[in-house]
Amino acid sequence: MDIIYIIDILGTFAFALSGALVASKKEFDLFGVIILAFVTAVGGGMLRDILINAHPINWIGDLNYIKTIAIAVVFTFLFKSKIEPLRKTFFLFDTIGISVFTLLGLQKGLSYDLPSVVAIIMGMVSAVFGGVIRDVLTREVPLIFKKEIYASACLAGGLVYLVLKNFEVNENFSFIFSASVIILIRTLSVIYKLELPKIKDDLFKN
Amino acid sequence: MDIIYIIDILGTFAFALSGALVASKKEFDLFGVIILAFVTAVGGGMLRDILINAHPINWIGDLNYIKTIAIAVVFTFLFKSKIEPLRKTFFLFDTIGISVFTLLGLQKGLSYDLPSVVAIIMGMVSAVFGGVIRDVLTREVPLIFKKEIYASACLAGGLVYLVLKNFEVNENFSFIFSASVIILIRTLSVIYKLELPKIKDDLFKN
Amino acid sequence: MDIIYIIDILGTFAFALSGALVASKKEFDLFGVIILAFVTAVGGGMLRDILINAHPINWIGDLNYIKTIAIAVVFTFLFKSKIEPLRKTFFLFDTIGISVFTLLGLQKGLSYDLPSVVAIIMGMVSAVFGGVIRDVLTREVPLIFKKEIYASACLAGGLVYLVLKNFEVNENFSFIFSASVIILIRTLSVIYKLELPKIKDDLFKN
Repeated sequence: MDIIYIIDILGTFAFALSGALVASKKEFDLFGVIILAFVTAVGGGMLRDILINAHPINWIGDLNYIKTIAIAVVFTFLFKSKIEPLRKTFFLFDTIGISVFTLLGLQKGLSYDLPSVVAIIMGMVSAVFGGVIRDVLTREVPLIFKKEIYASACLAGGLVYLVLKNFEVNENFSFIFSASVIILIRTLSVIYKLELPKIKDDLFKN
Repeated sequence: MDIIYIIDILGTFAFALSGALVASKKEFDLFGVIILAFVTAVGGGMLRDILINAHPINWIGDLNYIKTIAIAVVFTFLFKSKIEPLRKTFFLFDTIGISVFTLLGLQKGLSYDLPSVVAIIMGMVSAVFGGVIRDVLTREVPLIFKKEIYASACLAGGLVYLVLKNFEVNENFSFIFSASVIILIRTLSVIYKLELPKIKDDLFKN
Repeated sequence: MDIIYIIDILGTFAFALSGALVASKKEFDLFGVIILAFVTAVGGGMLRDILINAHPINWIGDLNYIKTIAIAVVFTFLFKSKIEPLRKTFFLFDTIGISVFTLLGLQKGLSYDLPSVVAIIMGMVSAVFGGVIRDVLTREVPLIFKKEIYASACLAGGLVYLVLKNFEVNENFSFIFSASVIILIRTLSVIYKLELPKIKDDLFKN
C-alpha cells in the first residue's frame, strides 16, 4: 500500500493546487486560498467519512493531508506564474489522484460493510465532491454537473474493481487495473471531448 | 406503518423527479441529473440523520431510496415531455410526500429522545432541506426562503402531531390528521397564493 | 466559566442578528429569516461538532442557543429600523463573540484529544463558518474569503492561547488574554482597513 499512499498524497497535492489556483484567480485573500485548497483536496473524503460515520475523519486522523495542503498553498504563492505551463503535469497528478481517491473510497466503504452500490457511491463522493464544494463556495455551478465525464470514469473504474474482487483476482492487480481504467477513460474523454448525454428531449418525443 | 412507507417512497419519487427536472432544464449532464435527483430526494433526511447522529443514515440504511431515485431518473430521461402535463399529479405526490417526511422526521427525532422543539426542527429539516441543497447546487437562492409557505405548513403539522401525542390520541389517527393539516395548508396556500410576511419595515416604524 | 457562557450567548445573539438582517435585506420571508439567523449563529459550532463527532451537537445539546436565536429574530422584526444606528454596539458583540467562539471551539477540540493544529482549525471553524454558510445560502461569495482579516485574528488568538497553555499559564488569564488579542486585531484591522495579501503575481515573477 505504500505506493498507493504516496499517490494519494500526490493526488491531494494536485487537488489542493487546483483549489488554490481557482481561489487566486478569484482574488481571494490568503485565508480564502487556504480554505479553497483545503476543501478541494480533502472535501470529498471528509464528506464520505461523515456519511459513513468513519471517525476520526480523513484529515483529522492523518495530519499529512494538512501538511500537503500547506505546501501546495505556499507553492502557489511562490510559483503561481510558473504553474500554468506545467498544466499537463498537474492534469496527470490530478487524474491519477482521482483514480486512487475513487478506489480508496470504495475500499473504505467495503471495509465498513456497506452494500456494493453504497461503496461505489462512496468512491465517487471521495473523488468528486471536493470539486463540488469548491464550486459551491466560489459560486459556480459545479463543473462536474455539466461537462467532464470525470464521474463516469470513476463509476466505471469502481465497477471494474468490484467485478475483479468478486472473482477474487489479486488485490494489487485489481487496484492497478481499475485505476488504469479510470485514468484511461478520463484522458480519452478529455482528448476527444466526450460528454454525457443531456435530457433535452425525451427519447419518445416525436 | 406499511402505507406510510409506501407514501414515503412515493414522496421520494416525487422529490427525485423534481430534482431531475430542474437539472435537465439547466442542461446538466446525466451525472448532474442523478446527483440533483439524489440530493433533492434524500438530502433532507440525510442532513437530519447526520445532525442527530443516526447511522446508518437514511439512504445507506435502506437501499429502496436509491432504487426509487434511479427509477425517477430513468423515468425523466424517457418521458420528460410527458411529465409536464402531469404537473398536478406530481404536486399531489410532492405535497403528500412532505407531510410524511415531516412526521417521520419528527418521530425519528422523538425516538432519539430529543426535546420536542428539536424533533420538530428535524421534521422540517427532513421535508425542506433536500430542496435547499438542490437550490444551492444549482446556484439559486433557496426558493423556500422567499416564497412558499411550505415550511410553515410543516411546522403547523408537526405542532398538531405533538399536541395530539401529548393527549395520547391514537397514533395512527394523529399521524393521518397531522399529515392532512400539512397537505391542506400547503394546497390552500398555493391556491390562494399566501405568503409569509417579510421584514420590510419594522412594526413600530413611523 | 459563567461569564464566558454569557458572552457565548451574547455572541450568538449578535451573529443571529446579523443573519436576520442580511435575510431581511434580501426580502426573505419569515422562515428564510429564521433559517439564516440560525445558520449564522450556530452553523460554525454545528460544523465543528459534526467534524469531530461531538454529539449531541451544540444547539441540540443546549436549547439556550435556539431561544437566543428566536429572540434575535423577534427583535429584528420589531426593531429593524432601530438596529442600524446601533451598528457599533453590534460590531462589539460580534467581535467579542468570535473571540469566545474561537477559544471555546479550540478548547472543545483539545478536550477531544485532537492535535493542536486540528484544535486551532476547530476554533476557526466555530467562529467563521456560520458566516460562510450564510453567504452560500444567500448566493454570495463568502465575505471571509475576500476581505476581512477576521480569520487571521482568530488564528492569532488561538496560537496565543496554545502557547500560554503550553507554559501552564492560569487558564482564565489565558482565555481573557487570547480573546483580547482577537478583539484587538479585528478592531484595528477594521479601523485601518488591513487586508491579507492576494496571489496576483508570485514573488519571483520578474
